[in-house]
Amino acid sequence: MYVYESIIGTFVFDASFKMVDQLKDKKSASEKYSGLTDVPESGLHHVLAQLKDRRYYKDFHQNNLRFTKRDIRASLKPDHLMIQAIRAIEESDRAISLLIKRVREWYELYNPEFSRSIHDHRGFVGLIIRKSKDELLAEVGIAEEESMGAALEKKDIDMILSHAKHIDALYKEKDNTVDYIDDIMKSSCPNILKIAGALIGSKLIEHAGSIKRLSEMPASTIQLLGAEKALFRHIKTGSRCPKYGLIINHPLVSAQKQKDKGKAARAVADKLSIAAKVDYFKGEYIADKLLEQLEKKISGKKR
Amino acid sequence: MYVYESIIGTFVFDASFKMVDQLKDKKSASEKYSGLTDVPESGLHHVLAQLKDRRYYKDFHQNNLRFTKRDIRASLKPDHLMIQAIRAIEESDRAISLLIKRVREWYELYNPEFSRSIHDHRGFVGLIIRKSKDELLAEVGIAEEESMGAALEKKDIDMILSHAKHIDALYKEKDNTVDYIDDIMKSSCPNILKIAGALIGSKLIEHAGSIKRLSEMPASTIQLLGAEKALFRHIKTGSRCPKYGLIINHPLVSAQKQKDKGKAARAVADKLSIAAKVDYFKGEYIADKLLEQLEKKISGKKR
Repeated sequence: MYVYESIIGTFVFDASFKMVDQLKDKKSASEKYSGLTDVPESGLHHVLAQLKDRRYYKDFHQNNLRFTKRDIRASLKPDHLMIQAIRAIEESDRAISLLIKRVREWYELYNPEFSRSIHDHRGFVGLIIRKSKDELLAEVGIAEEESMGAALEKKDIDMILSHAKHIDALYKEKDNTVDYIDDIMKSSCPNILKIAGALIGSKLIEHAGSIKRLSEMPASTIQLLGAEKALFRHIKTGSRCPKYGLIINHPLVSAQKQKDKGKAARAVADKLSIAAKVDYFKGEYIADKLLEQLEKKISGKKR
Repeated sequence: MYVYESIIGTFVFDASFKMVDQLKDKKSASEKYSGLTDVPESGLHHVLAQLKDRRYYKDFHQNNLRFTKRDIRASLKPDHLMIQAIRAIEESDRAISLLIKRVREWYELYNPEFSRSIHDHRGFVGLIIRKSKDELLAEVGIAEEESMGAALEKKDIDMILSHAKHIDALYKEKDNTVDYIDDIMKSSCPNILKIAGALIGSKLIEHAGSIKRLSEMPASTIQLLGAEKALFRHIKTGSRCPKYGLIINHPLVSAQKQKDKGKAARAVADKLSIAAKVDYFKGEYIADKLLEQLEKKISGKKR
C-alpha cells in the first residue's frame, strides 16, 4: 500500500496504484492502514493522473487559496513594519516641507520680520503657535508699528496658525515614529540600532530590503547604500567614485573633516556589516564592543 | 515766499529761493507765513540743490523706510489672504496624497481586504480610525480568519492609525479652509462666489493674480485659465485648441456630455467675466440673475 499527501488530503493506493481511500492526514492513514510507504517515483505518474479528476478541482483551488493566505499572513516580519515606518517618516518630511513653505509665506503677510529671523522650520512653527506677534517681534527687537506685516483680523491669524498646528503635529508624529522604530529595532536588531541609530539603521535596512539582505551585503556595499546613482555614474562614465551613501549622516562620519569622511564611512560600514550578520542570526549583543573599537579606530586615524 | 513739501518736512524759501525755515507740514507753514506759493519750475533746481545737503540724508533714509513699510502694511488685500488659502488647499491635497499612499500600504499588511474594497481615500481613513478590523471585514463580508492581513500587536496598529488620524485632520482642515475662503469671498467678491463656488472661484482668482486682474480679462481668457500649457502647445504646434481650463470642474460644465462641455464652459466664463467686473467695481449683487440666465442658456442648448 502506498500513501500520497497533498493539500486536499492524504490518499491511499494499492500495489497497482489504484486509489482505495482518501483521509484527512497521514496520521489517520497510518492508523487505518499498516505498512504504508510513500509512492515511488515510478508510480507517481499514475497517482497524479487520478488526482487530475475534475471533482478535486474545487478542493485544490480552495485549499490552495487558504494555505497561500495563511502563508501571507505569517510572512510579516518586524522588518516590514519598520520599513513602512521609516518610509512614512521620509514622506512626512516631504509633506512637511511642502506645507511649511506655504505657512511661511502666508504668515509673512502678518509678521515678516520674525519669520525671516528664524531658519529652523520646527522652531518657527512651535513659536508662532505659542506666542503673539508682539512677543515674537520683541524677540527680534522690533516695535510692532515698525513691522511691515499687516494688521490681520483674528480669524485670518487663526486660519494661518491652524495650518501651522498641523505641521507641528506632523513633527511630533515623526518623533513618535522614530521611537516606534527604535522599539522594533531593540528587539529585532539591537546591534544595528546601537551602531547606526534608529534613523540611519532603519534607512539602511529599508534600502537593503530586509535585515537578511543587509546581513548578506559586504561592508563596501553597505558603505555606499544610498549612493547608487553616483556609483553607477562612476562605473559608466569614470567620474569619481562615491565614498559614502546614507552613512554620511552618521555622527562619527559627519563630524570628520572632509578628507577623513571616506575612511570613517568605511570603518562604520565595517562594524555595521558585522552587526547586521549578528542580528540576523540572533547572536549576542556585541554592539558596545564594536562601537568602542570603532571610536578608537576613527579617533586614532585623526592623530 | 515759496513752500516746498517733502517726506522729511515742509520748507519755506524766500523770493531768491534761499531756505528760510523748515516746518512739520504745509498747514503749520501757512499759519506762520502768509502768501505762500508752490515753488515754480524755474526755482526747483535751486531748491533741490539745498536739500541735497548731507544733514538731511538720515531723515530722508529713515522716512523713506517708514513710509514704504506703512505702504506695504496697507497694501494687503483680502485677495492675498484668499490666494494663500487656496494655495494651502492645493498643497494640502498634494501632502495628503503623499501620506495616504503610505498609510494604505502600511494598513494593508494588517487588513488588505478592506483597503482594497474602498477607493475613496477620505472614507477609508475615516473608517479605519473609527472601526475595528472585525467590523470592517464584516462590511466586505469576509471572516477574520480568511483575511490575508497579519495579526498585528496593538502598538503596531496604533502607529498606523495615528498616521491615519493626521490625514483625517488634514482633510478636515481643508474643509475649514474652504469655509474661510467662502467667508472672504462673501464680502469681497459675492458674485464670483455665487457663480463659480469658493473652490473654483478662488482658483481662478489665484490664477489671474487678483480680482482686479480677473476683472480685466476677457471671457475667453477666463475660459482657458489653467489650460495654458495646452493653449501654448496649440499655438506652437497646431494641436487642438483647449476648450476649458479650471472651469471644467464647474458643476454646470462637468455635468454636460463631452461634446457640449466646450459650449457650457464658454457660457460659464461669460457670466464669470461679468461677475468679476461687477465685484471689482463693488457693484450690486446680480449673481442670482446671472446664474438663472446661465442655467437657462445651458439647459436650452441641450434640447
